[in-house]
Amino acid sequence: MPLDNPRSDFPNWYSEVLRRAEIVDIRTPIKGSNVLMPNGYEIWESIKRFMDKQFKATGHKNAYFPLFIPEEFLTRESEHFEGVVPEVAWVTHVGDKELPEKIALRPTSETIMYYMYSQWIHSHADLPLKYNQWCNIIRWDTKETRPLLRDREFLWSEAHTCHTTFENAAKQVEQSLEIYQSLFDALCLSYLVFKRPKHDTFPGAEYSIAYDSPMPNGKMLQIGTTHHLGNSFAKAFDVTFLDTDGETKYVYQTSYGISTRLIAAILSIHGDDQGLILPPMLAPIQVVVIPITFKDKVEKIIEAAHELEEEVAEWGYRVHTDDRDNYTPGWKYSEWEMQGVPIRLELGPRDLKNDAVMVVRRDTGEKESVSRAELKQKIEELTSSIFDTLKERADATLDKMMTEANNYEELSHIMKNEQGVVAINWCGQVGCADKIKEDLSSGILGERYGMDEEATGPCIVCNNEESSRVYVASSY
Amino acid sequence: MPLDNPRSDFPNWYSEVLRRAEIVDIRTPIKGSNVLMPNGYEIWESIKRFMDKQFKATGHKNAYFPLFIPEEFLTRESEHFEGVVPEVAWVTHVGDKELPEKIALRPTSETIMYYMYSQWIHSHADLPLKYNQWCNIIRWDTKETRPLLRDREFLWSEAHTCHTTFENAAKQVEQSLEIYQSLFDALCLSYLVFKRPKHDTFPGAEYSIAYDSPMPNGKMLQIGTTHHLGNSFAKAFDVTFLDTDGETKYVYQTSYGISTRLIAAILSIHGDDQGLILPPMLAPIQVVVIPITFKDKVEKIIEAAHELEEEVAEWGYRVHTDDRDNYTPGWKYSEWEMQGVPIRLELGPRDLKNDAVMVVRRDTGEKESVSRAELKQKIEELTSSIFDTLKERADATLDKMMTEANNYEELSHIMKNEQGVVAINWCGQVGCADKIKEDLSSGILGERYGMDEEATGPCIVCNNEESSRVYVASSY
Repeated sequence: MPLDNPRSDFPNWYSEVLRRAEIVDIRTPIKGSNVLMPNGYEIWESIKRFMDKQFKATGHKNAYFPLFIPEEFLTRESEHFEGVVPEVAWVTHVGDKELPEKIALRPTSETIMYYMYSQWIHSHADLPLKYNQWCNIIRWDTKETRPLLRDREFLWSEAHTCHTTFENAAKQVEQSLEIYQSLFDALCLSYLVFKRPKHDTFPGAEYSIAYDSPMPNGKMLQIGTTHHLGNSFAKAFDVTFLDTDGETKYVYQTSYGISTRLIAAILSIHGDDQGLILPPMLAPIQVVVIPITFKDKVEKIIEAAHELEEEVAEWGYRVHTDDRDNYTPGWKYSEWEMQGVPIRLELGPRDLKNDAVMVVRRDTGEKESVSRAELKQKIEELTSSIFDTLKERADATLDKMMTEANNYEELSHIMKNEQGVVAINWCGQVGCADKIKEDLSSGILGERYGMDEEATGPCIVCNNEESSRVYVASSY
Repeated sequence: MPLDNPRSDFPNWYSEVLRRAEIVDIRTPIKGSNVLMPNGYEIWESIKRFMDKQFKATGHKNAYFPLFIPEEFLTRESEHFEGVVPEVAWVTHVGDKELPEKIALRPTSETIMYYMYSQWIHSHADLPLKYNQWCNIIRWDTKETRPLLRDREFLWSEAHTCHTTFENAAKQVEQSLEIYQSLFDALCLSYLVFKRPKHDTFPGAEYSIAYDSPMPNGKMLQIGTTHHLGNSFAKAFDVTFLDTDGETKYVYQTSYGISTRLIAAILSIHGDDQGLILPPMLAPIQVVVIPITFKDKVEKIIEAAHELEEEVAEWGYRVHTDDRDNYTPGWKYSEWEMQGVPIRLELGPRDLKNDAVMVVRRDTGEKESVSRAELKQKIEELTSSIFDTLKERADATLDKMMTEANNYEELSHIMKNEQGVVAINWCGQVGCADKIKEDLSSGILGERYGMDEEATGPCIVCNNEESSRVYVASSY
């Protein structure tokens, strides 16, 4: 059964595809606290495998810290406190007894991790320290929730590192950027890297880098962040080390994370009117085999399909044979297209006779008969070609969204119509950012990180001559 | 530095080894909510990898369900409610606002999962359904907490399956048993499988199977459970299916789980006065290379050590070279013994000259020089031999603990002295079990599952002739 909603109607397409492809089920008793279904969880597991390999290769270690955070921790770093507290869920009772002090569920783990770091770090020889944690996070958004985009409970990875100097922490920011870029590239995502403006910096941080990816409706989605924390948390939690010069100093810290939001980005940017298209490298099933059975040859075809599956598995692919007898091949084609499996192999009596397989690529729908002798090479080529196509499409989407506005009227026109990522000149004042937010429901993403772009004129809101080149978009 | 506490002083040894080998850190702000350190978390990751493979091969799928459970869910299955509620942590506030209804943090996920199952399962074609979840669990024990043994927050795997009939669910119980046995065997654990007595069955279940492993101090540790849930939860959550006969029926369910407690079992049963001994199959580091450097040959030896590491890695082992220059080889030997790495390779100038390596096995401490040509085979043999030795030792510990008591006086004497697992005859009455509990701080583990043992006389408490053969132990 095809989708009811075309991708051009993005909000409805998104909801339908999450349900039909069994990625997320939102029919839970508590809003914004959803079920990540096996098809969605497998994508997350692929991301975890990829990241763990990168983390291990760069000296990160995984650990698990408590969900429970004392109230007093959240108030130690005063900026941080104001930023996170409105969304904090509090445990106040156990059984029928009231606790002497209420306890927060982690909205992020800086405070509890750095409390431990202060006990673990003594000397420069203990640095750098790079720990990562895969866990659930609670942010009780009281606004509208959206599955994977804005959940009250979600899964994430948060890495927290400590260094001897500001510069070493800055280098770690760069390393996190490289790691995330390799992940985003493997997922065929397009993205821009911004240094967030001061008013949108993580509470307590020196500066925040964010990765924003385009969505089909012209909005941007923040898919990851990296923060240079300076030593404000180190001071709040007394994380010090004895340096080579004999002096006790505060460590410099960074933190960075990605979450199940990334799944939303993958599904949204690559999908089409038929459903999902998963990037080959991270697709839980990369190749699906559909036996086309006829009444008198059912067993023979099913057997041949499983043999084909085994062969493809030996070549190193994640492959599945859909041998269900209560669905037609046509129904199965739609179903696996919906689920976004990159390559489909159809095997019927004629293919068997010709020692061939019908090969269909999900991204373009192109279909061709391939001899068994050439199949291995064909799958290899297709995997690479689908990867390139998805990346090109994603890049084209982003390119199309990027534009500039030379005055407030132009910006206003763009944000009220096609939307996109709009380059403007901005004075850096929160007042001007607030005006854009109120008038146009859009925010300033910041300066392009590492690009050294210069302003082309005065602030388009207040005409102040002192301005910098920043980008505006409507974001999730 | 050697341990301060010998393993014979188990409670102190256990605490020290968790700290020194950096498995768990309990110096957290909230009691019973600890940090699973990288060395502990890596063991958990090994267990996960092993289990996920087994689960996948037997048709289980991973998913992630909400942490948050409405109060009303916990009260639907009345037995379950009484069992879990005293330890439930409740969220009552978000930010500075009170929630209209308090929300439980999952003490186990039967209720939330089956609420979803009732929406997913329609027909017999949807069955069996086998979902597993890796997640954190909250049980706010108000008694004494102990790291990994009794935590207020811990990590676990919980599988929840649905079937068409009682018998199919019973078969699933058997499958879970096979899966767990393969895991426990890979971990070189010894264990007994019991059918828990009615009064110790999981709230709401038809019957509960439990896996108990011996601890060095004569106590038993429950390391896993499997429950046949019948259809009491299906009735409470309306999980029904249209059967082939056209009738709508309740599903039959099972649930089973293991937790980070398993890490405690592994560390405790295999450890010795020098620290941990990790079973080769699941050790995060299986082989450690220690370069023995001399002043004029430091670089050459370090380089050779890394070459050796690469070679061993190519053979398929997880291997690490400790090339730190601020510790002596002797210090490193102790350190890696503490951490339980199964095989140590020492490489010094003389070894290099002789084209040999000094090989040390952690379990016995035996040391021998092995030529490089024979090293691969030697490591293979040792891996297998260490595995056998650990299993034999664990089995011997359990054998030594198993005994019987023909009357209450004998039981009393055993439980007040050496403790252990004591076979007795018991009438099945809770009153008699309570007396044993009160007098001897011990519980009835149940009948040996699948053994069909018969009573050898009347109940040793009340003399009732109608009795069965059960086992008594003091448990964590």
